[in-house]
Amino acid sequence: MAQYDVICIGGGHASWPVAATLQKQGLQTLLIANDRLGGTCTSWGCDPKILLDAPFEIMAEAARYRDIGLEGNLKLNWEALQAYNRKVIAPLPGMLQNMIEQSGAQIVFGSARLTSPHTVLVNGKEHHAKKIVIATGRRAATLNIPGAEYIRNSSDFLYTEHFPERIVFIGAGIISLEFASMAVRMAREVVIITNGNTILPQYYDRYSRKLLAQLEAEGVKFHFDQTLSSVVKRDEEYLVKTQSGLEIKTDYVLGASGRIPNVEGLGLEEAGVIFSQRGIPTDEQFRTNVPHIYASGDIRDTSIPRLTPTAFFEAGCIVQHILGEAMPMTYPAVPNVVFTIPRIAQVGISQKEAKNSDAYRSVDIDYGKQMLFQTRNEKEAEVAVVLNKEGYLVGADIYGDFSGELINFLTLVINLKLTARDLRGMIFAFPTHSFGAVKFALENLLRQE
Amino acid sequence: MAQYDVICIGGGHASWPVAATLQKQGLQTLLIANDRLGGTCTSWGCDPKILLDAPFEIMAEAARYRDIGLEGNLKLNWEALQAYNRKVIAPLPGMLQNMIEQSGAQIVFGSARLTSPHTVLVNGKEHHAKKIVIATGRRAATLNIPGAEYIRNSSDFLYTEHFPERIVFIGAGIISLEFASMAVRMAREVVIITNGNTILPQYYDRYSRKLLAQLEAEGVKFHFDQTLSSVVKRDEEYLVKTQSGLEIKTDYVLGASGRIPNVEGLGLEEAGVIFSQRGIPTDEQFRTNVPHIYASGDIRDTSIPRLTPTAFFEAGCIVQHILGEAMPMTYPAVPNVVFTIPRIAQVGISQKEAKNSDAYRSVDIDYGKQMLFQTRNEKEAEVAVVLNKEGYLVGADIYGDFSGELINFLTLVINLKLTARDLRGMIFAFPTHSFGAVKFALENLLRQE
Repeated sequence: MAQYDVICIGGGHASWPVAATLQKQGLQTLLIANDRLGGTCTSWGCDPKILLDAPFEIMAEAARYRDIGLEGNLKLNWEALQAYNRKVIAPLPGMLQNMIEQSGAQIVFGSARLTSPHTVLVNGKEHHAKKIVIATGRRAATLNIPGAEYIRNSSDFLYTEHFPERIVFIGAGIISLEFASMAVRMAREVVIITNGNTILPQYYDRYSRKLLAQLEAEGVKFHFDQTLSSVVKRDEEYLVKTQSGLEIKTDYVLGASGRIPNVEGLGLEEAGVIFSQRGIPTDEQFRTNVPHIYASGDIRDTSIPRLTPTAFFEAGCIVQHILGEAMPMTYPAVPNVVFTIPRIAQVGISQKEAKNSDAYRSVDIDYGKQMLFQTRNEKEAEVAVVLNKEGYLVGADIYGDFSGELINFLTLVINLKLTARDLRGMIFAFPTHSFGAVKFALENLLRQE
Repeated sequence: MAQYDVICIGGGHASWPVAATLQKQGLQTLLIANDRLGGTCTSWGCDPKILLDAPFEIMAEAARYRDIGLEGNLKLNWEALQAYNRKVIAPLPGMLQNMIEQSGAQIVFGSARLTSPHTVLVNGKEHHAKKIVIATGRRAATLNIPGAEYIRNSSDFLYTEHFPERIVFIGAGIISLEFASMAVRMAREVVIITNGNTILPQYYDRYSRKLLAQLEAEGVKFHFDQTLSSVVKRDEEYLVKTQSGLEIKTDYVLGASGRIPNVEGLGLEEAGVIFSQRGIPTDEQFRTNVPHIYASGDIRDTSIPRLTPTAFFEAGCIVQHILGEAMPMTYPAVPNVVFTIPRIAQVGISQKEAKNSDAYRSVDIDYGKQMLFQTRNEKEAEVAVVLNKEGYLVGADIYGDFSGELINFLTLVINLKLTARDLRGMIFAFPTHSFGAVKFALENLLRQE
């Protein structure tokens, strides 16, 4: 039986950095992947999503200059974009494989199953390891209703060859809203059915409502408080039915009502690892109840946002723990971005928490209205910041196209506990969003000392 | 004679923050402006420039998706954009005036002249001040050649009502290149005549050459090592002639061969303030040779880039000095951005200095090629970083559309002396430029500890 120091199960970003980094440090590692390396992010998540999103965002930006400078019309050719998407994404798992192999780590493709707390079976062979990392991620949940087989998931959508003229989204979470931002610029009819009564409840309600109003103005139809009852195929179209009697004809049904952990068939029971339908619970060192078995990334049962950067961070912490090095295992402020058009971003203490507590001060900054010349005529762009009693930045929300870069900038301000003096002592390039929207406003808000 | 603690001469960003801030602190201040408040930046610089530039940049971004997703053509309607420009910019000086008046500072519009080291004459009235700040800025230099009266300057260009079909730029500095990036997308013929043999010599030569090649590919014609001899008006067109015999027919001649300090008519002699054709020299506290008279912003004789953010910074330092508060009067790393399409940005130690010294290590990061899915198909985007012996970031250069935000992010890394451990301990949003291009690469380059 082959002997390893560490076996990592899963090919995504919660797993491979552990195998590659430890191998470089002299440990013998094995990476077992049952699908493309890079996992959801590389092949069915962030990477194809942002690639497909970019030209839609450019169309939206161009539209803001209608009548004030930009004439003519851009039209999206989905087939051409899809061909480019496949061309760019296809080689990424192979590039990643080369990189991992250069570290010296072994890679085996196949389905892994724990046969004991220290042994893993793959392709009929058993491997022994001192430590094991489980990082098999999540997949789209399927609904248990008649016609469920007609419902596509996000992975299908990202590689759909021909864009449907009518599309129905089941669920009003991040995936549905991101795809709806694209779909409304392509399709004749975009409908979102949700059993909730709002969108993005975990974000600043002012921004969720703005996004809802914006998507409705663009033509997206929302049906709240609806429970799907069946999907019926009729000739070339589908009939989506809800328990309250709503019936919608469409060409494409996308189910995006949650993601569930890939815990089945892993032999977790044989290894004695506790898990539930919510995933695998872990301690602060990302260890399962079996101390030499770690869980990393989306498989974990946690309230931390399941993002590529948190997976990377957890992998890094596990590496440090296995190497016996001191490393803070507590999360820093975790920024996250909803890639709708425009984006919504959030980091740190939420607006809801801030507004319900005397410990915080919340300030809205209408930077789109103030800084027309900097924001590509994006008048609706806004930032809201949360300061604590001592005047340090502890949270921020952004509504606007450039949220991704700005939220990272603000994450630095939070984590480094910058003061007004720190910012005042720095010179930033102007005109830029990070200067106009952030530094200029923060200098008067942050702790003065 | 009215008595003030401080008189600030000039309505720009090097001046008004001194008057407004000190007045708020209880000093009596007078601001004298002979033109629109906000100065060059607000009315003839950054603000109208970036406003006019944005739709051109969107056109360029859309063009990168030709054949891979975006069909159709955008056309720039200059008249409509110009109307929007005037509408947005026109109220800014008035908004600024309200803001300054709210501080309680006095404002007088007129030409100021020092009549002694403590007195200033404006509109026939003399005012006395304990301290004086001179911040009258710079203006476009005019050439002493036949036909100079036909040469327009950057202020004219920013408000040109009808875009000329053919345009000749005199000079290949930042202003010419920024405007040429727009003009080549509007005009039939764009020519740049320069007496130098290269463009942007103060930037990373690899990026200057890339930008030159890119502008040439778009159709801009460059004539190097040429000295303008005359401009002749013939019917509806101009004939631009150089000493070597070059003759170019055009509809519009834009002179952008440098800016000179507004030192004339200020009574600097009467006040005993030393100055030259390069401006007013100052000490580290931004004082002239007359200790109670400061000079701020573009009027100074200095090698520091003349930018709005440096003017603000200097104004802030002067405020601190007058208030007697300790404040570091040395500049932090100063980022600057050339707003061409794409942009070039620079901060800290230059590539030239890094490559000529053993004290530094320079690393090129081809992030456009590596991160196609994040960079809006901007394959040419690059970052180059400079690290010192201890492994701290001390300089950076960027070539790409998002340079402005990225250079601010890197400026934070430089000024705060962040280490690999600092960055590794943080989670940034993905996919973003600041994550993909910066954090990911820097983690392996920065000081490991």
